[in-house]
Amino acid sequence: MDSQVVDLSSVSFSTFRWLSEEYYGLNGDHYDVLESPPSPLEFSRILHISRPVLIKGYTIPSLRHWSNKYLSDIMGDRPLSVAVTPNGYADAVTRNPDGKWYFVEPYYQKMTMKSLLSRLGLPSDMSQHTEVFYLQSQDGNLFSSSYFTSGDKESHSELASLRGDVPAEIPWCSEALGRCPDAVNLWIGDRRSVTSIHSDPYENIYHVARGSKTFLLLPPTEGWCLKERLYPHATYQRESENSPLFLKPSLSTTPPVRWPSILHPEQPGSLPDTAHPIIIDVKAGETLYLPAGWWHHVRQSGLSIALNWWYDIEPRGSTWVWLRLLRGVPAEAAGGEEVDE
Amino acid sequence: MDSQVVDLSSVSFSTFRWLSEEYYGLNGDHYDVLESPPSPLEFSRILHISRPVLIKGYTIPSLRHWSNKYLSDIMGDRPLSVAVTPNGYADAVTRNPDGKWYFVEPYYQKMTMKSLLSRLGLPSDMSQHTEVFYLQSQDGNLFSSSYFTSGDKESHSELASLRGDVPAEIPWCSEALGRCPDAVNLWIGDRRSVTSIHSDPYENIYHVARGSKTFLLLPPTEGWCLKERLYPHATYQRESENSPLFLKPSLSTTPPVRWPSILHPEQPGSLPDTAHPIIIDVKAGETLYLPAGWWHHVRQSGLSIALNWWYDIEPRGSTWVWLRLLRGVPAEAAGGEEVDE
Repeated sequence: MDSQVVDLSSVSFSTFRWLSEEYYGLNGDHYDVLESPPSPLEFSRILHISRPVLIKGYTIPSLRHWSNKYLSDIMGDRPLSVAVTPNGYADAVTRNPDGKWYFVEPYYQKMTMKSLLSRLGLPSDMSQHTEVFYLQSQDGNLFSSSYFTSGDKESHSELASLRGDVPAEIPWCSEALGRCPDAVNLWIGDRRSVTSIHSDPYENIYHVARGSKTFLLLPPTEGWCLKERLYPHATYQRESENSPLFLKPSLSTTPPVRWPSILHPEQPGSLPDTAHPIIIDVKAGETLYLPAGWWHHVRQSGLSIALNWWYDIEPRGSTWVWLRLLRGVPAEAAGGEEVDE
Repeated sequence: MDSQVVDLSSVSFSTFRWLSEEYYGLNGDHYDVLESPPSPLEFSRILHISRPVLIKGYTIPSLRHWSNKYLSDIMGDRPLSVAVTPNGYADAVTRNPDGKWYFVEPYYQKMTMKSLLSRLGLPSDMSQHTEVFYLQSQDGNLFSSSYFTSGDKESHSELASLRGDVPAEIPWCSEALGRCPDAVNLWIGDRRSVTSIHSDPYENIYHVARGSKTFLLLPPTEGWCLKERLYPHATYQRESENSPLFLKPSLSTTPPVRWPSILHPEQPGSLPDTAHPIIIDVKAGETLYLPAGWWHHVRQSGLSIALNWWYDIEPRGSTWVWLRLLRGVPAEAAGGEEVDE
């Protein structure tokens, strides 16, 4: 979601508290589990309710062939942009050795699929002192919006060789929304990669092909419990190909990034009592509907491969206003010791 | 909607102003017009957007036979409960001769359909000094919730003789929502009856069978412009069958009623600039989708006959919380000179 500061300084915490209590009172922490994919009409109702749903039985037959060998062979020497971090936290708030907190983006390193897969899912004694690799380019690395809008079916994507195995859209979702996805992404990583808690302004269909993912979710009404602040921007960099990563603050002209200050919501006591996290394990072959604006923190097992389809939010009606209200105004720029580790 | 006072005293007017400006900025005052009824999936999308839609081409063939003679004959001597007021404002804020403002409910008088129809649509010179009659019992006078829920298909309704002509539900709406209506009502009145501006916690399908209705609508985000206050309750009564109506304040134990203080939103200058009313004429044969929580003021032409189907709002998700937030906390009890006439 854009980081524009909303002029909502008049919205007090008691209003946010009231909203989250009322919402929880009506909805609890329930989520539906479907044993088979919904019809377009059923999914339209689900979109209206805007709560997570675990969907079983939506199978993508071609993914059964996605062994490491198949993926390595089909991708060949084509270089992939892989996120590298020292700790598994790409796109996360991190403390620099100087004690200051930054929102840090990963270092991107080019490597083949074979090389990536060889570095993932290693036994813990072999991996604990090494860098963490995660294919998570999130830019529509399989199908981007230009694929759908401009009729440009040419492959400019690094992962174009895999397009034949992946449906460009989810029929019951496209029909319910009346539009195509905005981006389709492939994610390949292992248990050392963690996605820090954040929210996206997209309806998200998230399918696990191999391994499993554990989502910790909070509704948009509980976002205020995450204490969003503005953090100065930084990236991981290295001096040369074989030297270690270091955190490099960006130029001061780079806008700060609005991000939650709760770094480990999965740890007991890290969230206030007013937050009611929902934990959903998504196993291979299962699909999560992750509604727009829901906060999510994601862990994964062994070697995990997942696909997601992002669809634009409904622009008409009150969805946008509601989500912007709930994000309120961020506290002033951090940089000190105010982060809840 | 219930009149429970929501503990939202912390929500300032600047928040309400921000919400209404953002909502208007995204949606404007546009409404869609459909040339034919929507499919269930299309209507599900419309419910999600929650903005009014004028639907043409949804015909109810049996209504073509609803002449005054047909209606009088089929209803025979069966007595109907008809709302009677001196001024056409039933369920409205009204000033008593003592200068105090009340929320006044109409007097209910029993009469036959033939008698009712003979009093409606008269030339203005014949009607200007007479009482105003409106069949508007609103309690599911054709089909009530017990009809749908208890399987009780027996006719306890005053209008049961007309049930054969009226579909108990709207197929594309029932299928979109996955449920039956909560109440189906018949409305018969003329241009002298006006429905004061209010909102209902129901999805409303409103079909005009004869005459026309003019709806003035405001989105839920602009409800704060209507200055809801708590008014003491009263009813119109008469001493004997032929004596004139008078306003009788209810016992002080009757709870006050929360109602807008803007009595004539259709008149220029009565609404602040922050309100953006949408005016929709619904002609005979046309159907309005009036979304839950939208404020509506209704006038009608000549002799108007209409049907409406109320469906319960989606209880899951954020719809209820959103609508309750937007109603905020009402100003303290009125009763003085604070009404905007």
